[in-house]
Amino acid sequence: MHRGGHLESPTLAYETWGTLNEKRDNAILIFSGLSPSAHAASSEEDVSAGWWEDMIGPGFPLDSEQFFIICVNSLGSCFGSTGAASINPETGETYRLHFPVLTLEDVAEAAYGVVSYLGIEALHTVIGCSMGGMSGLAYCVRHPEAVNNFISISSAARALPFSIAVRSLQREMIRSDPKWKLGEYDTDDPPLIGQRLARKLGMITYRSAEEWDQRFGRERTTEERTPGDPFSIEFSVESYLEHHANRFTGAFDPNCYLYLSRASDLFDLAEHGGSIASGLKRLQLNRAMVVGVRTDILFPVHQQRELAEGLTEVCPDTRFVELDCIRGHDSFLVEMDAFRPVICEFFESCP
Amino acid sequence: MHRGGHLESPTLAYETWGTLNEKRDNAILIFSGLSPSAHAASSEEDVSAGWWEDMIGPGFPLDSEQFFIICVNSLGSCFGSTGAASINPETGETYRLHFPVLTLEDVAEAAYGVVSYLGIEALHTVIGCSMGGMSGLAYCVRHPEAVNNFISISSAARALPFSIAVRSLQREMIRSDPKWKLGEYDTDDPPLIGQRLARKLGMITYRSAEEWDQRFGRERTTEERTPGDPFSIEFSVESYLEHHANRFTGAFDPNCYLYLSRASDLFDLAEHGGSIASGLKRLQLNRAMVVGVRTDILFPVHQQRELAEGLTEVCPDTRFVELDCIRGHDSFLVEMDAFRPVICEFFESCP
Repeated sequence: MHRGGHLESPTLAYETWGTLNEKRDNAILIFSGLSPSAHAASSEEDVSAGWWEDMIGPGFPLDSEQFFIICVNSLGSCFGSTGAASINPETGETYRLHFPVLTLEDVAEAAYGVVSYLGIEALHTVIGCSMGGMSGLAYCVRHPEAVNNFISISSAARALPFSIAVRSLQREMIRSDPKWKLGEYDTDDPPLIGQRLARKLGMITYRSAEEWDQRFGRERTTEERTPGDPFSIEFSVESYLEHHANRFTGAFDPNCYLYLSRASDLFDLAEHGGSIASGLKRLQLNRAMVVGVRTDILFPVHQQRELAEGLTEVCPDTRFVELDCIRGHDSFLVEMDAFRPVICEFFESCP
Repeated sequence: MHRGGHLESPTLAYETWGTLNEKRDNAILIFSGLSPSAHAASSEEDVSAGWWEDMIGPGFPLDSEQFFIICVNSLGSCFGSTGAASINPETGETYRLHFPVLTLEDVAEAAYGVVSYLGIEALHTVIGCSMGGMSGLAYCVRHPEAVNNFISISSAARALPFSIAVRSLQREMIRSDPKWKLGEYDTDDPPLIGQRLARKLGMITYRSAEEWDQRFGRERTTEERTPGDPFSIEFSVESYLEHHANRFTGAFDPNCYLYLSRASDLFDLAEHGGSIASGLKRLQLNRAMVVGVRTDILFPVHQQRELAEGLTEVCPDTRFVELDCIRGHDSFLVEMDAFRPVICEFFESCP
């Protein structure tokens, strides 16, 4: 592991779409954000919709008739890849907080293992969304010869203190839940209250004030209020947060969340060479694109513009796209009509 | 109370600076934000620094040699005024959640009681900061004949869903702390963990990402990390939040906080006449000023511009000042050099 420690025989979960061509030069690797699995899109093996369903497949921007698309469940996550919720084969017990410090360099390295295993020497493109954009940068800086093109979506070269503060508080919410028990929680009775709070803070930073003004305003919820509780849900925006949090909570292992959240804070491209510029100098990209959203408060667009400017220095064929979406950081998941044309233009895959 | 219920013989704590003149027309009433007391500035009776120390006093913008300045501890707070932590004289027990629903109209009405008690028929100026700006609007709309001028600082005509979501989550953090006990907490063992989380979220929304970029960047704290806890404090911004939260926590009664926080959500000037414009039409102001800060995410400057535009319709002598402070919502407390000239220009009190 990048910061010490090791994992014995880790497992990496991944899914693929399309076929690797004979030259093995049509592979695209997707790094997801913190919470998704490798199931980015439906397939014959799993027909359920993926987290980037309308981006991947025949005729979509990531066209599976043209490309071999790989999505890896990040190392440290809990959807098939080894993480804090996995059994440590050396002890026979769940890692929990004995899992070593996780960094996005480790996430990248694990994905590199998958790509090598698939017999791919150089990827056509690495594409990363949110935290995945930083994992993607780690991949490019660690294996510059193995990446031709890079797309960063709503990400950055490093985390800034506002985002660190938000994630630190999310972690504290989980760690403050008495059921967390220093990571030794009963898996049948996890720290759901802390997880729900953390998810709600997540939603507040993933969306935007502007969207909520338009969508909810000061509308009251029609749900029945809890009798005798003067502080129960009253506004529609509160009800929205409640439903989202309940849907997510319990689906993600709390310790894995803590590790990946901290890994996002720790990433700093400047650690690869002394400055962001020196880090970027190590890359050997033909083309790059940075896509950002005006209303993103977690990865603000000025950070993404800076990344694009830095990339342009080392890869003149870099495009910066600032989208006027109102759904904030989450726009890449929910405003697909804005993102699809940009991605398909990059891959010249527009129908 | 505005939404039903009543308080038997409530107490209102207030402080004053300067002397009421014979015509009784030099009184300024200050409404504070959610957390401060009536101690806005030092005085002979209490020499400790107040929350707006460098704004009030001889030679300051709120010049106590010229004006009679009153600051009321909001009804519902816990610094001398009756709130959920007070004894209900009708039962002999602490109100706790038996305190009626609190609104900023009640906060305004209670302050009106103080002003009347002091023998003042019409205030020279009502000035409100943050939540206090909304209390001030409530005062102006309920007693239009009793206010000549109005200043709103980093406030708005109503709460928007982003701010409601933030405050709702802060309340949930306290309510989720097992020590809260549905408001029946042991006063010697209050829900400190929930309060600390809520305060940290407060700090995240009171300041700005831009300030923290400049101030902390990715600097590490020199504090010793908790051994064996991979998620303890590492970045300076985390340490800053921890210190601020510890300083505040325990100083404010959790139930009072819940009531005032909810009151901030509930306020909507549009309830006075059907729309914000109709509400504003009720005012009888000679002059008004709205001061906002570019980096404020809790009361975004566009909302303040809207309030200023609305005020201009009914009070042509309305000034809107957008300050280029980087400390976000809290700027009015910590960037006094930017605020003082604006306030003293309004009062023609510049030295």
